[in-house]
Amino acid sequence: MDVMFMVTSGRHTRSNLYLLLLIIVQCGRHAVEGVWPLPRAFTSSPERYPVNSKDFYFVYGRQSAAQQGCSVLDTAFKRYFSLIFPDYHSADGVLGFRKHKPFIVEICVDHGDCESYPNEDSSERYNLSVSAGKASLNAETVWGAVRGLETFSQLVYQDDFGSYFVNKTEIEDVPRFQFRGILLDTSRHFLPVQAILKTLDAMAYNKFNVFHWHIVDDPSFPYQSSTFPDLSSKGAFHPMTHIYTQSDVRRVISYARLWGIRVLPEFDSPGHTKSWGKGQPDLLTPCYRGGTPSGTFGPVNPALPSTYRFMARLFKEVSSVFPDSYIHLGGDEVDFYCWRSNPDVRVFMQKMGFGEDFTKLEAFYIESIVNITSALNKTSVVWQDVFDYHERIPKDTVLHIWKGIPVEYKAELSRITKAGMRVLLAAPWYINHISYGQDWFNFYTVQPQNFSGSEEQKKLVIGGEVCVWGEYVDATNLTPRLWPRASAVAERLWSDEKQTSNVDKAFPRLQDFRCQLLRRGIQAEPLYVGYCKQEYQGI
Amino acid sequence: MDVMFMVTSGRHTRSNLYLLLLIIVQCGRHAVEGVWPLPRAFTSSPERYPVNSKDFYFVYGRQSAAQQGCSVLDTAFKRYFSLIFPDYHSADGVLGFRKHKPFIVEICVDHGDCESYPNEDSSERYNLSVSAGKASLNAETVWGAVRGLETFSQLVYQDDFGSYFVNKTEIEDVPRFQFRGILLDTSRHFLPVQAILKTLDAMAYNKFNVFHWHIVDDPSFPYQSSTFPDLSSKGAFHPMTHIYTQSDVRRVISYARLWGIRVLPEFDSPGHTKSWGKGQPDLLTPCYRGGTPSGTFGPVNPALPSTYRFMARLFKEVSSVFPDSYIHLGGDEVDFYCWRSNPDVRVFMQKMGFGEDFTKLEAFYIESIVNITSALNKTSVVWQDVFDYHERIPKDTVLHIWKGIPVEYKAELSRITKAGMRVLLAAPWYINHISYGQDWFNFYTVQPQNFSGSEEQKKLVIGGEVCVWGEYVDATNLTPRLWPRASAVAERLWSDEKQTSNVDKAFPRLQDFRCQLLRRGIQAEPLYVGYCKQEYQGI
Repeated sequence: MDVMFMVTSGRHTRSNLYLLLLIIVQCGRHAVEGVWPLPRAFTSSPERYPVNSKDFYFVYGRQSAAQQGCSVLDTAFKRYFSLIFPDYHSADGVLGFRKHKPFIVEICVDHGDCESYPNEDSSERYNLSVSAGKASLNAETVWGAVRGLETFSQLVYQDDFGSYFVNKTEIEDVPRFQFRGILLDTSRHFLPVQAILKTLDAMAYNKFNVFHWHIVDDPSFPYQSSTFPDLSSKGAFHPMTHIYTQSDVRRVISYARLWGIRVLPEFDSPGHTKSWGKGQPDLLTPCYRGGTPSGTFGPVNPALPSTYRFMARLFKEVSSVFPDSYIHLGGDEVDFYCWRSNPDVRVFMQKMGFGEDFTKLEAFYIESIVNITSALNKTSVVWQDVFDYHERIPKDTVLHIWKGIPVEYKAELSRITKAGMRVLLAAPWYINHISYGQDWFNFYTVQPQNFSGSEEQKKLVIGGEVCVWGEYVDATNLTPRLWPRASAVAERLWSDEKQTSNVDKAFPRLQDFRCQLLRRGIQAEPLYVGYCKQEYQGI
Repeated sequence: MDVMFMVTSGRHTRSNLYLLLLIIVQCGRHAVEGVWPLPRAFTSSPERYPVNSKDFYFVYGRQSAAQQGCSVLDTAFKRYFSLIFPDYHSADGVLGFRKHKPFIVEICVDHGDCESYPNEDSSERYNLSVSAGKASLNAETVWGAVRGLETFSQLVYQDDFGSYFVNKTEIEDVPRFQFRGILLDTSRHFLPVQAILKTLDAMAYNKFNVFHWHIVDDPSFPYQSSTFPDLSSKGAFHPMTHIYTQSDVRRVISYARLWGIRVLPEFDSPGHTKSWGKGQPDLLTPCYRGGTPSGTFGPVNPALPSTYRFMARLFKEVSSVFPDSYIHLGGDEVDFYCWRSNPDVRVFMQKMGFGEDFTKLEAFYIESIVNITSALNKTSVVWQDVFDYHERIPKDTVLHIWKGIPVEYKAELSRITKAGMRVLLAAPWYINHISYGQDWFNFYTVQPQNFSGSEEQKKLVIGGEVCVWGEYVDATNLTPRLWPRASAVAERLWSDEKQTSNVDKAFPRLQDFRCQLLRRGIQAEPLYVGYCKQEYQGI
């Protein structure tokens, strides 16, 4: 096809042979390096097929359980058309192709769950076969099809004449881990909805599938609760501009759904709740000094029945607003100082027979909250601290490992999975922590299952998460801080470890992918000296 | 005036008293914290005056040597009107003011050098006096007036009704150091012109006055030379998209001029020249291995007469394109390995009587280049390395201190000023080096004249420079990496050290200033947990 094009175009005839060689070399290079994160099984050949934006179609296969009208796939087709042909309007007919065959991408899914939400059991497996004029994409679910479309979009490239091509390719792909998350912290700094949506786009390009929304914390409470509107009207940085309305939240959830991304809300308690206290009197524990209230407040007050009534109503709302079957309850970093100082809390301790052991009080509190959310059919995720103080933690709870950077987390993984608990690894991927140079190496070389334990234990690692804590991050620097550093984690969580263990091999692929992100409007920072064809222009 | 406004507006009457108090408190706060970098002498009072965009004028004083038609000030008036009233169109008449007095800012300068370029001797001193309905800004030069306009623009603020005010204020201001620079590296990554212009804007807001353009280096040669077009057509990352045309360069220089910013070009040699070799055969030294050329190239070849003919022609062009009286010649980090390996260089060494001392060869080379630029009436700036190997360095040369981070640079300052040489401090301000947390503390607490030496020696410190080396920086992350971290240096270089020695006092002021930068469209990253009224929205 190359040669035909060369001849029919009738231009640059002198250097045709050289160009042809160059193109073949580049194609080969592209085909090998072209997909991030690396698919499980991937064969491609230098044989390539033209792809023309004027005659390019996504179609549903006859056997597909989903057909036109499927919101997820209809939207994905539209999104990916623009991603594959970003200059569709301007390039219109530049090369004057008149006669060409159409290129068809035929999608076939086994289950037509087009209006559902992705969940912990959703298959993301897909097969993709690219041949002359046609690509066949088969998946069990629409979510797998969305992943396959991302892969297909990364396979298409432009030659130096601006013509689009895709190489003959066979791919069988399935993620290594089910849970591949990114945490954004919207309490330490407020992130405009637009920044969240942009992050969801970039997540999809990287095949991340969980947006962990650490929505509230000590500094601010931007979630506008319909049950308790004072929480944001008094606890947000600003009651009108720095909040997420119910409509904002719905928009984020539905936008994420269309990318096959779950939204996991976190309402962290009993610590990290200073901002809650502004709009909910009596929720926090008054701290005492010298026998009188000092005017400061500590964690949620676990001694008052009103606390649990409040939490039951709040989590009822949250559970209905956020459709995911998981809910994150926090439970980390509780300082006992204030509880200890408070006479009512001490009386409660006596009454409950906890003695002086405040971890028992903490366990009692968390157990009560877990019971509330269990009754709402939610699976709880909690930070690992809970494992240390709570013996009767329900077996389906997921423990979120954040301690033990840079290496001690392995012992934590070992210890917690030994108790039969499922774990989620975040510790080595606190991406807000920056250091000079190519620190993505550190993220890339993490081996999430390389800890001492049985095969059964290793299976309890359900995935990992990149955390962007907000002390020093807001919408001004979120994107360059996240990308492409989080892309290193994306490959670790999606791809086979043995095939992706070498940073030197990963480097040129990641550089290419970073240029791809730039081309898609993601302000991803450079890995090292060099350039992209299309640099970031907007400042 | 507040009260009058309250009464005449006839709205919010219930809470008038409370609002009034609030406004007074905020005004007071604003007046104290409102200008970054801190002016030398600054008194303000809670007395405030309304400023209405519909009746606000910059005017030339009768005695002013510059009058309408003065490009620098006419442009500054236009720029600062938009900066002071960013929502001019949308706020048009919202509050329905009909009768009000105009507010006049009267500018008076002693010298009307409106078409000149700022230079090393340009005075930036100004006095600003704000009273009812009028501000008087007096300066020796138009450059001082531009600095004063920046200060005035930072004094104007909006109350919660959106009305603009300025407090009664008296300011006498003069920079501590004459040279307050920012280095951008456009070789390791290409920076689009738009990114440079945006940086010039932010520099002016911070009262930086030198843009040190490290325009070429090993990785790429983006400067399109009219004398030697092959340098960029072969040495740039891309010969069409990743270059600075003559017109681009002129645009940068003239844009900078209008902000009172000098453009100091650096053409670093004899090292850091790999990219030069692509478009200029025989310029670099062929390295030898085992008696034959190895195919690799080292620094500029100092043994060939053609080298000096080339450099004379290049620097003649550069000297005419860049109007500044300074030129940066580099001279750092020369590796002798390749020179030593080359038989022609060794023959030259013998001929010149340098023996085995390659520092003599290096000194010979630099002396030749300095002679070329001296003949072109340029003052040379060189990296400090040159001081170590070159005994006969001309007395007007400026040594640029980059070694000895974090503290050893003090010994360097001491040693080099003792020899009577002028110095420019960059070492503690390599702002591309990032670390987690509030590292601006480190930049802020540098004491550029706190080294062992006489008063005369201290006066030889002409200023300092923030360096943004480009290994890991391009247009995607330049702005959040620079600002507000470089603002810490801005205050160190402009303001009196005794008045600005406390980081705790600086913190809230810098936070306010960072919000001001955001409001002006500069994607400045956050210092710590918190928020700005107007967050960055564009992603």
